[in-house]
Amino acid sequence: MIDNNLELSQIGEFGLIKRIREQAREFQSGAVIGIGDDAAGVKVKEGKIALLTTDTLVEGVHFKWDYTSGYQVGWKALAVNLSDIAAMGGTPTYCLVTLGIPRKVDLSVVDGIYQGLSSLASLYRVGIVGGDVVSSPVFFITVALVGEEDREDVLLRSGAKEGDLIYVTGDLGTSAAGLFCLRKEKELGVSVFLRDKLQKKHLLPEARVKEGRQIVDAKIASSMIDVSDGLASDLFHILEESKVGAELWEDKIPISEEVKKLAGETGSSFLNWALYGGEDYELLFTCPEEIKSSLGFPVTQIGKIVKGEPEIVLIDSAGRRRKLEPRGWDHFSGNLKIPYWKES
Amino acid sequence: MIDNNLELSQIGEFGLIKRIREQAREFQSGAVIGIGDDAAGVKVKEGKIALLTTDTLVEGVHFKWDYTSGYQVGWKALAVNLSDIAAMGGTPTYCLVTLGIPRKVDLSVVDGIYQGLSSLASLYRVGIVGGDVVSSPVFFITVALVGEEDREDVLLRSGAKEGDLIYVTGDLGTSAAGLFCLRKEKELGVSVFLRDKLQKKHLLPEARVKEGRQIVDAKIASSMIDVSDGLASDLFHILEESKVGAELWEDKIPISEEVKKLAGETGSSFLNWALYGGEDYELLFTCPEEIKSSLGFPVTQIGKIVKGEPEIVLIDSAGRRRKLEPRGWDHFSGNLKIPYWKES
Repeated sequence: MIDNNLELSQIGEFGLIKRIREQAREFQSGAVIGIGDDAAGVKVKEGKIALLTTDTLVEGVHFKWDYTSGYQVGWKALAVNLSDIAAMGGTPTYCLVTLGIPRKVDLSVVDGIYQGLSSLASLYRVGIVGGDVVSSPVFFITVALVGEEDREDVLLRSGAKEGDLIYVTGDLGTSAAGLFCLRKEKELGVSVFLRDKLQKKHLLPEARVKEGRQIVDAKIASSMIDVSDGLASDLFHILEESKVGAELWEDKIPISEEVKKLAGETGSSFLNWALYGGEDYELLFTCPEEIKSSLGFPVTQIGKIVKGEPEIVLIDSAGRRRKLEPRGWDHFSGNLKIPYWKES
Repeated sequence: MIDNNLELSQIGEFGLIKRIREQAREFQSGAVIGIGDDAAGVKVKEGKIALLTTDTLVEGVHFKWDYTSGYQVGWKALAVNLSDIAAMGGTPTYCLVTLGIPRKVDLSVVDGIYQGLSSLASLYRVGIVGGDVVSSPVFFITVALVGEEDREDVLLRSGAKEGDLIYVTGDLGTSAAGLFCLRKEKELGVSVFLRDKLQKKHLLPEARVKEGRQIVDAKIASSMIDVSDGLASDLFHILEESKVGAELWEDKIPISEEVKKLAGETGSSFLNWALYGGEDYELLFTCPEEIKSSLGFPVTQIGKIVKGEPEIVLIDSAGRRRKLEPRGWDHFSGNLKIPYWKES
């Protein structure tokens, strides 16, 4: 029985852990040892390799409470980790959740976080088997996610070869467009319907787990990464690891009509959103041969791998070539320098 | 080649990841996929269960930079996780490290953290296979640690039975005494030698991994936990999970002469340090029968499990009984109320 009329400081750390344990009970199936002991214990399947990944969201850095609910924070914290497992073609299995919580935080926010986590976890049958809650002057959430994969299936960033074609799932720039709306809520003259659609991609992203698995099963790809920092930055990671260059075809980059409409109405660059915005959590992958038959989900050919230094050349519809900076969101060397990211 | 004359804001997030990858290279042995891809990949042994645990240290909450070096923070962040695996009788194998770093932090501190992590990781052959670095207004470090264990070996908190004897490894209260010294550095009239010894246990704790393994191998114990929050609080966890009560014998609780000396000289209660101080990272376990032969390391019988509600009765040398509050460090319901914890 969950009492909703309590404050965090009243129930304390161990009260909170009990509460979490109760709420997460149904998501611990498969765990030999669940929440409440020194460590969680999970069974391991023979002949598989375990994938380990972790990602963190910090209040004020990765999101703001002004425009984000607890549910959305919980959902997104797991989604960004699922996306990393998707980029390896793996199957997510178990996670640990760490919350750094300011003392005065409302317990309903914490409950919302676990509801968001649980909703997404149940979609992928991921067990929430443990974690940590600590006091912190600033809120943060760290998810550590375990996945599994057959040994021969591993798709690394380092497998791209000269002549490979570059593909991406879904479309790009939508998350950045959504963030643009969230940050300018008051002044923006676009429809609520349009805004909601774009914002949803930013606040409640979907990870391409099934798509990643299918790309691996189809044995068509030579390398793969998820688009978390932005197309330019993430493609650059593949180039660095594979020691090759790339050409990107500007007018092939998939950008939705809604994103183009918003950019047009607000004088923004949809190309910048797609190249540098990040957080689309689509899969970027390279293939030795053209994809001829449908994979059951949209993929777009956007360029090709070339010989040479890790370098991206963007080619526009008139055939003009320009070298792209591999910039995107960098936590330490300064924010993105494109307009939408500027604090108002 | 590591350049030590750089600031974090100069090398950026991806520069930092490269640097970490270079420094952690030798600790990735055994990983199929190491630092630098979307997820790490590790081999899994047949017939084992995987143990998963995570613990976080936050600046200003778990430690202060005034009296803690980067090396010590890195070491301790891994040690507290090793201790959780030790408490299950498991063998630690791989870890992920997440750092939340304020932008202006000195790169030498970050290097120190990885040196501390690497030193301890190499002692236990733990691979540092991945992680995340994010910008954060406050520094924090989260380690997620994977371990392994044979299925039948699991020692839970819930196995204690009426009549079992309560044991603890090493001695208690030393970490709290060390913290007491660290917080009062200027005024304290105790010897540097004494202070260093006590402070070391607080700043560079050792996890009882081998001891945990031996306790499991000897098949003598019915439950086990590590002493992280304090004897009273951690014993209470066993009682709650096992649905039993306990008697603790005050004069049997192992407290070193150094700790008693410091308490005497400063008018502090060494019993409070042992009961409520926490962070000793000794193992607390229950045994159906008395331990007769040496385990090769010091253990002390400090009480017994009794029938009834989860409740600890402390019995002093004159036979007086008093009920203990299961208090210890609680992050949300308010700090410890015993004198040494008070901020000066």
